[in-house]
Amino acid sequence: MRSLFDFVGGEAGKWRVLSAAAVRGAPLDPVGYVDVRPAGGDVPATGNAWCLKGQISNLRYATRAEVTALRSSQESLGRTQARRAALIPIRKTPAWWDLAQDERRAIFEDQSHHTEVGLRYLPAIARQLYHCRDLAQPFDFLTWFEFAPESADAFEELVATLRSTTEWQYVDREVDLRLERQG
Amino acid sequence: MRSLFDFVGGEAGKWRVLSAAAVRGAPLDPVGYVDVRPAGGDVPATGNAWCLKGQISNLRYATRAEVTALRSSQESLGRTQARRAALIPIRKTPAWWDLAQDERRAIFEDQSHHTEVGLRYLPAIARQLYHCRDLAQPFDFLTWFEFAPESADAFEELVATLRSTTEWQYVDREVDLRLERQG
Repeated sequence: MRSLFDFVGGEAGKWRVLSAAAVRGAPLDPVGYVDVRPAGGDVPATGNAWCLKGQISNLRYATRAEVTALRSSQESLGRTQARRAALIPIRKTPAWWDLAQDERRAIFEDQSHHTEVGLRYLPAIARQLYHCRDLAQPFDFLTWFEFAPESADAFEELVATLRSTTEWQYVDREVDLRLERQG
Repeated sequence: MRSLFDFVGGEAGKWRVLSAAAVRGAPLDPVGYVDVRPAGGDVPATGNAWCLKGQISNLRYATRAEVTALRSSQESLGRTQARRAALIPIRKTPAWWDLAQDERRAIFEDQSHHTEVGLRYLPAIARQLYHCRDLAQPFDFLTWFEFAPESADAFEELVATLRSTTEWQYVDREVDLRLERQG
């Protein structure tokens, strides 16, 4: 039922950090590796720089038509060829959270075309959103992407497009970690 | 920023239990009192039957027009004359959570008139919704109401109206605790 995950930054892990940038606001402490683990499983690792928690939850804006379009073309995480990943934690401003649902939906899709933009890059770029606003975390969302090295340019385009939207004017903290799978 | 609360059922607390009913699904263990506390404050009480956690979060369905209507007539918790309260934890079915946003909104308001019904009972019945679906809790929401004893009949009407809606067909667990303030 519950799908809570730990994103652990430290000196070991499945994903090696290729680059880390503080796009807006405070950075995360530099780490060499990121590991993604179901929460509460193993003994918590010690000596890690940070642990971000995120929860897979229900979709908050997508209409049925959009859900159908997404499900028909998106691929799951863990594909063999998807040796690159990006972990982009973001936090939105209090002004965003004070908007009504119709106002957030209008900015998210009608103005910023968030789902529509993401659809253009399916199935090459697999995505998973983890929620953490209700978990007393430093970010509201952990966004996670997986793709093959040959889709790296397309991924840059996707990220640049989203960052140019009206929606992104409500982002007040964003860190961008690019990762390469080990083994 | 964060507004996480513990709803503690036990042998002491600000609110004395007048009645407790398992409306749908499993009951909660019987208790004499309920206390509502900001989470993480004092030492956790021992010997309590249960502790439900809930988080004040952003509105998920209300439009700007509805938010404006709500804010113009709702009253806050803690009014002197509001000596009665109700704690009604509810859980919704997986089918509900698998609906797209537009489908949930259509059931919530267009078909079930959830906000419109609630507005009819403002300002007499003060309400606060606490989210817990993302907190690994046995319920999805803790709904909390405060009113003066003379509004008790109106409150019964409000609850009966909501339970008769299409939205409530997606509720698979609901417990209803009626409370009286001590002192």
